[in-house]
Amino acid sequence: MAHEYDDHIAVRPAGSGRYDADLAGGWVVGGGVNGGYLLAVIGNAIRAELPGKPDPLSISAYYLAASVPGPATVDVSVRRDGGSVATVAADLRQGDEARITALASYGDLTRLGDDVRTTAEQPDLPPRERCVPSTMAPAAFRATAPLLDRFDMLFHPDRIGWAVGEPGGTGEISAWFRLAGGREPDPISLLTVVDALPPVTFELGMPGWAPTLELTAHVRARPAPGWLKVRHATRNLAGGMFEEDCEVWDSAGRLVAQSRQLARQPR
Amino acid sequence: MAHEYDDHIAVRPAGSGRYDADLAGGWVVGGGVNGGYLLAVIGNAIRAELPGKPDPLSISAYYLAASVPGPATVDVSVRRDGGSVATVAADLRQGDEARITALASYGDLTRLGDDVRTTAEQPDLPPRERCVPSTMAPAAFRATAPLLDRFDMLFHPDRIGWAVGEPGGTGEISAWFRLAGGREPDPISLLTVVDALPPVTFELGMPGWAPTLELTAHVRARPAPGWLKVRHATRNLAGGMFEEDCEVWDSAGRLVAQSRQLARQPR
Repeated sequence: MAHEYDDHIAVRPAGSGRYDADLAGGWVVGGGVNGGYLLAVIGNAIRAELPGKPDPLSISAYYLAASVPGPATVDVSVRRDGGSVATVAADLRQGDEARITALASYGDLTRLGDDVRTTAEQPDLPPRERCVPSTMAPAAFRATAPLLDRFDMLFHPDRIGWAVGEPGGTGEISAWFRLAGGREPDPISLLTVVDALPPVTFELGMPGWAPTLELTAHVRARPAPGWLKVRHATRNLAGGMFEEDCEVWDSAGRLVAQSRQLARQPR
Repeated sequence: MAHEYDDHIAVRPAGSGRYDADLAGGWVVGGGVNGGYLLAVIGNAIRAELPGKPDPLSISAYYLAASVPGPATVDVSVRRDGGSVATVAADLRQGDEARITALASYGDLTRLGDDVRTTAEQPDLPPRERCVPSTMAPAAFRATAPLLDRFDMLFHPDRIGWAVGEPGGTGEISAWFRLAGGREPDPISLLTVVDALPPVTFELGMPGWAPTLELTAHVRARPAPGWLKVRHATRNLAGGMFEEDCEVWDSAGRLVAQSRQLARQPR
């Protein structure tokens, strides 16, 4: 079955490590195109450039300027390809302007050992039928965030106060997550998932978008099919900036991705 | 007063964004030169290339190959310099080989707001006179880690079992930290501090060095003079890799740096 997400992140080889992409307007949020979606477009181009090393182990993106819907190019430059890991530099450009510059290491997650010793705990979320879907967001809000139609998000019914002007101040937002049409998660789509939830600053009583300066994601395992659990949390809002940590858990209860971004506090 | 650390991280401009450095043998640990020291050398070169933006806000380093003591060059390429933040790419090379490739955003930490809303808590460490200094490490161990002479580290007396073959399994190591000779901390030296403690895997019963694939550090404030408190922790060791989070607190009780690295589990 074809899913819109695969069309949205599609890249076409243009030679010499360059890939053409079309940034989908459906991922616009606030003033620009969602950073997690852009990260997956870059990640998809890198994947195409590295046969035999299909999975992002780590990717670090520095957001230089807001991207807009429409044509873009991703230039991938291999910095080292030895053994089981390849490291590349990649730039996403629109026109002559670099909008995002990134570094990444890729490998094959299926070739890693299967030992797991995690003390991290899954987000505490009730069964999905008891959660609050993002489709219940006010129309005025949805109008500024067409990306809300790109996936299903289900929030804890007792911790949704931030959505109605009563933030809990916990610095944490968790949700069930699934791409539109039930498109199953994979290592590339996890790059979108880590930046899909609302900024955790919503929960601190700071509505408004929080521009990302830097985001690094580690994909730790290939996700099992099914719904994901996602947690955003911040512990240090200071100097007009905050870190936002994201954890993504798959339906098998495995922590499949961890990310941290440094973002500007909403004005 | 002159301190060895300043000599060790010194860079000399060679034109066109290139800086010459001499990697100090005193920072060798296990098979190579300490990654945090190398990060500060790179950070120092970037600082020299960006007048008016002296402080690393975020730096992401991908370790391509182990570095060795001796001559090295750092090439800094400005990717964007607009407003209060500049973003650069930088490579540390020895001979013709890139050993580390990095991206970084710099600014002026003194120009950030002074609002602080942190829920993060300082490491629980007793007064320094009750802690165990790293100088008590066995001679055989110290012989493999000359970097232990580059700084003072004081560990919690009740949580030092990992050093004598009795790891606690908590996945956390904390210590008081100060550079040799009492050299005061600054934003650049924090890049060394975030990778100075023993790998947290020691505490999980896995002695041996843990090669870093990627390390991203966020410097959140200029540190006050005096001793630092440093915490290393991991929550997810899986597939032969683990994330190591580091927090650095200054003598004023402020969280001044946060970092995360993805490293390989010791063999």
